[in-house]
Amino acid sequence: MDMLIYLIPASGLLALLFSFFKNTWITKKEQGTDKMIEIAGHIKDGAIAFLKTEYKTLAIFVTVVAVLLAFSNSGRDDSSWLISISFIVGAVCSALAGFLGMIAATKANVRTTHAAREGLGPALQIAFSGGSIMGMNVVGLGIFGLSALFIAYSNMNWDLVKVINVLSGFSLGASSIALFARVGGGIYTKAADVGADLAGKVYEGIPEDDPRNPATIADNVGDNVGDVAGMGADLFESYVGAIIGSMVLGAAFTVVMPEGFTLSAVLLPLFVAALGIVLSIAGTFFVRVKEGGNPQKALNLGEFGTAGLMVVGIYFLITAVLPESWIYNEFTYTSLGVFFASVIGLAAGSAIGLVTEYYTGTEYAPVKNIASQSITGSATNIISGLGVGMMSTAIPVMLIVAAIISAFHFANLYGIALAALGMLSTTGIQLAVDAYGPISDNAGGIAEMANLPKEVRERTDKLDAVGNTTAAIGKGFAIGSAALTALALFSAYMIQAEISTIDISKPVIMGGLFLGAMLPFLFSAMAMGAVGRAAKEMIIEVGRQFREIKGLREGTAVAEYSKCVEISTKAAIREMILPGLLAVSVPVAVGFVSKEMLAGVLAGVTVSGVLMAIFQSNAGGAWDNAKKLIEGGLKVDGFLYGKGSDAHKASVVGDTVGDPFKDTSGPSLNILIKLMSVVSLVIAPLIK
Amino acid sequence: MDMLIYLIPASGLLALLFSFFKNTWITKKEQGTDKMIEIAGHIKDGAIAFLKTEYKTLAIFVTVVAVLLAFSNSGRDDSSWLISISFIVGAVCSALAGFLGMIAATKANVRTTHAAREGLGPALQIAFSGGSIMGMNVVGLGIFGLSALFIAYSNMNWDLVKVINVLSGFSLGASSIALFARVGGGIYTKAADVGADLAGKVYEGIPEDDPRNPATIADNVGDNVGDVAGMGADLFESYVGAIIGSMVLGAAFTVVMPEGFTLSAVLLPLFVAALGIVLSIAGTFFVRVKEGGNPQKALNLGEFGTAGLMVVGIYFLITAVLPESWIYNEFTYTSLGVFFASVIGLAAGSAIGLVTEYYTGTEYAPVKNIASQSITGSATNIISGLGVGMMSTAIPVMLIVAAIISAFHFANLYGIALAALGMLSTTGIQLAVDAYGPISDNAGGIAEMANLPKEVRERTDKLDAVGNTTAAIGKGFAIGSAALTALALFSAYMIQAEISTIDISKPVIMGGLFLGAMLPFLFSAMAMGAVGRAAKEMIIEVGRQFREIKGLREGTAVAEYSKCVEISTKAAIREMILPGLLAVSVPVAVGFVSKEMLAGVLAGVTVSGVLMAIFQSNAGGAWDNAKKLIEGGLKVDGFLYGKGSDAHKASVVGDTVGDPFKDTSGPSLNILIKLMSVVSLVIAPLIK
Repeated sequence: MDMLIYLIPASGLLALLFSFFKNTWITKKEQGTDKMIEIAGHIKDGAIAFLKTEYKTLAIFVTVVAVLLAFSNSGRDDSSWLISISFIVGAVCSALAGFLGMIAATKANVRTTHAAREGLGPALQIAFSGGSIMGMNVVGLGIFGLSALFIAYSNMNWDLVKVINVLSGFSLGASSIALFARVGGGIYTKAADVGADLAGKVYEGIPEDDPRNPATIADNVGDNVGDVAGMGADLFESYVGAIIGSMVLGAAFTVVMPEGFTLSAVLLPLFVAALGIVLSIAGTFFVRVKEGGNPQKALNLGEFGTAGLMVVGIYFLITAVLPESWIYNEFTYTSLGVFFASVIGLAAGSAIGLVTEYYTGTEYAPVKNIASQSITGSATNIISGLGVGMMSTAIPVMLIVAAIISAFHFANLYGIALAALGMLSTTGIQLAVDAYGPISDNAGGIAEMANLPKEVRERTDKLDAVGNTTAAIGKGFAIGSAALTALALFSAYMIQAEISTIDISKPVIMGGLFLGAMLPFLFSAMAMGAVGRAAKEMIIEVGRQFREIKGLREGTAVAEYSKCVEISTKAAIREMILPGLLAVSVPVAVGFVSKEMLAGVLAGVTVSGVLMAIFQSNAGGAWDNAKKLIEGGLKVDGFLYGKGSDAHKASVVGDTVGDPFKDTSGPSLNILIKLMSVVSLVIAPLIK
Repeated sequence: MDMLIYLIPASGLLALLFSFFKNTWITKKEQGTDKMIEIAGHIKDGAIAFLKTEYKTLAIFVTVVAVLLAFSNSGRDDSSWLISISFIVGAVCSALAGFLGMIAATKANVRTTHAAREGLGPALQIAFSGGSIMGMNVVGLGIFGLSALFIAYSNMNWDLVKVINVLSGFSLGASSIALFARVGGGIYTKAADVGADLAGKVYEGIPEDDPRNPATIADNVGDNVGDVAGMGADLFESYVGAIIGSMVLGAAFTVVMPEGFTLSAVLLPLFVAALGIVLSIAGTFFVRVKEGGNPQKALNLGEFGTAGLMVVGIYFLITAVLPESWIYNEFTYTSLGVFFASVIGLAAGSAIGLVTEYYTGTEYAPVKNIASQSITGSATNIISGLGVGMMSTAIPVMLIVAAIISAFHFANLYGIALAALGMLSTTGIQLAVDAYGPISDNAGGIAEMANLPKEVRERTDKLDAVGNTTAAIGKGFAIGSAALTALALFSAYMIQAEISTIDISKPVIMGGLFLGAMLPFLFSAMAMGAVGRAAKEMIIEVGRQFREIKGLREGTAVAEYSKCVEISTKAAIREMILPGLLAVSVPVAVGFVSKEMLAGVLAGVTVSGVLMAIFQSNAGGAWDNAKKLIEGGLKVDGFLYGKGSDAHKASVVGDTVGDPFKDTSGPSLNILIKLMSVVSLVIAPLIK
């Protein structure tokens, strides 16, 4: 196995190479008219401006945490402080993946618009390729950084537990970036979106995406900042967390493994991830569509095709890497059992995606119901949307429960970790499909702002409509994987903190459970409050520009887009500090009081966080599509309700309420639950 | 102690006697004009019609469950089937309390209106006296039924564990009524309210409480059905559950108690409840107000005065009843420790009430913020309301956690149960204050419909405004007590099912936790869907009447009020079946698979249920008062926003969304968590 281990970083390099070639290919494509180039330039500049500010703040944060980490771990022995190096490398890898992915997305958007002037097929190609750059950078940098560090630390003559403990800093680095990118990005994107919408429609009476609206560029920047970079950092964190969690659990087996297999169970997670990269690259070639074809089918083929290949691939991989069976703590593990556990995760991920599609897709009963409830006004629209969101938690939770119990049945805690990893093994293509959405959305915005012919906008709308569904599926997937990853990290925490049971009949643990379960509510409230405050600033700024810039309303003067970008950026960074501190400080504060109580807090935040995340994401997605359904013309009892009808106005209210739900507070909870688990894992050796 | 035990049922009789005299006193008061008498008659008839239908369905339900209970317990020994007798007695006591309380409320409403023609003081007296009848019936029948059964069973020569197990059927009976009254009543009241509002304002263009609106009587009936009978049954359940939970835990001590104190810890809960009755009666005499005075202060004096007396009273009670100290399972219990635990519960209940007042009262920042967010439209109103609701979970949860941990510190699990009981010991006066709210609300409605002079409505409005706050406080109290009661029942379940630890690191228990935590979301979604469907039927019926009854719109013909009452009644009964079955069947189904998994489910449903209940109740209360704040005239940045402004319209949307939140799905969760715990406790001997 000694030499084979180098295949792992090699697979990471392969992904980076792939994304490099895709990037070159996209860069060569034409950008269209001067107006288009100008608009795209504004978006790109705005996105870079946000990242610059974010990374500046991050640099301070990372430095402080690195010093704290090094300092608090230096007491244990001579080399444990190296955890801070892992931490920095993890942060840099995630930040780099986000940066490269976002640059690519801001290149791909305008080129997608231009390609849409020719046809649907070429436009899809560019949008999807743009997304795949993000996907491949995430998995490539994730696996390369992680495996390179692992190989380096393995040569240090440490025992394996210490290797993995020091390595876990990588995961904390990834989580730190995820916090900034997902929470900060989420606040950014919705402050801009809600601010632009309200300022434009309510106060100034101009349509969506109108170039006269000074906040419209910030809105488009937001798609890249929140939906591309944010989602990328979120999955980077899950991906890395699932791998490290599995490695911690696998490390326990080294003492009982047959000869030649000592490290098998530790390395398997890395090999599974490496295989996933190769197959995700293969999967991108399935995504093709002809004029008049259905982009949804093409994307589905890519995703599910890769998943199918993965099932076959990991069978051979697992049976090759692991011994046929071994016994640890009276449980008989088999390679076949581990294989089943991984497939269970993969299947659960896909199933959660499909359920999400049901609850948020325009073709199904829930969204149709919200749309028809819009006829009696905003109140009934909101009530039914909240109902759909709450109802939509049931099946995903049952799937997660089934996955946990059956994966455990097949391979104990290691099985649960492998299920998480199975789910995440196709992250490369999953993220490509996710990032495709905001690129198409941007492409549509550019078409509108550049006054391109109607058929161009129709084509980008077609791509965008699919993007709404893929976004919802991607969110379901992100939540499901966050849940399993958190559980894997939870088990890893228990091992590292040397906790054997967590008895909830003990009040301190029940108290921890309550406290943990409350955090997602508090965190969501903070995130929504942040969006509200930032949107208000945006509205005031837009009002100022319309008052002070002469000719803006008439379209003869240009708006000061960068001012709005700046407002969103500053607000996002400022507003994420408090929730961020909450996520980081609670595990530390509780952990040093009682490591058992911390376990209760982790269980509580995971369970309640998953529920609140599904509830909010799906309610938001359903409201969004209910609006789209009415815009396409809704017929009820012989009456037609379309754009401009009272039903439409009611559905716009629902959509606006859903915006922070689905793009800020909901997805932020993924970060909350993972970050708290990772922080606990990292401090475990200190509090045990 | 042998003879002293009869003091307990005697205290119950005292409460019933008090309520009898209050009832006679109210009945003698004048009812006012013929029009007032007619309207009040409609409301009373509607309320009785609902109760009749509900009790018919209940009779079937109770019979079936009683037979099942008798049958499933008959295999154990000759007399365990008697649990079904306890069950029936519990159901009958709760139903009777609800019936008598509601009749009194429907008598008090019109007499309050009439008294308001004279002044504020007399009106408050009648409204509060009406509420106190409900309060005293609940505690009186609760304690009388329970203690009478306990005395009867104690004479059977059974061992104590069996006595209490058979007695636990009483709690299940109470829970069954609570399910029907709270869930069914909640659906009824909001179907009528939302239906009447939308039909009146949106479709027919007539104001609130207009007598031409056929649904307006159903709306007034709903206040009695949901807020009086529903709240009463809810607290009856908590009250009984807390007593039984404490008795189960106290029963363990009998073997180690010093001579003469064998049954002390078992009987203490009953004595605490008995003392609470006497002091609640005393507390009612504090509630007085002069013309121009503040009714809020009068009610607060009653509540907090009683709580203050209670602290002193239970000190003497506990030190008299319990031995100074005893040791069980290596824990040293002291009478002082038990006293502290009870006071902690009492204090936590009051503190949660105050926090609730902060988040839902018009004088504080949260509601003011929602009101000012209404200026930018419905969407921002909704977002900020949701944010306030979520934020408002933080402090109550921390209070509950602090109460759990410190009560446990002082007296172990018995301490937690006594904390629940301490919180509930003032139920008599708490419920009087709660029921005062809907009586005042009704009084205002009657004043409006009977076209009484403006100053009458102003007086009833003053009473009603206070009622909104007391309702919010009452809900906070109901949730807090439900949480602690559920925990007491949870511990009791563990003992009866012979479970020693519940390790959440076991996947089956973690799975149970997820599953349990999901149920409140599912249950809420069902409840909200039910309100939506029923409200729709109501709107259709109102439309039909306006079309078919000539002269209705002109006010020359009378609406068919009873048709609307019938629709609400039928819908409520029909729609509560599915959520009801869910609550009852899940513990049974899970319990027979794994009693440990059931423990996980109970923990999950309690934690998530408490959070969702606080979130929904407070969001709803805050929206309601934000609307009231704007109606009173809201000044922001120099602009005045009042009734009829766009901000007001936006706030009406929030209020309508909040209606099912705060009066249907939110409070129903109290029932869900307690009912599931009680069902588990009852089936515990069968699955151990």
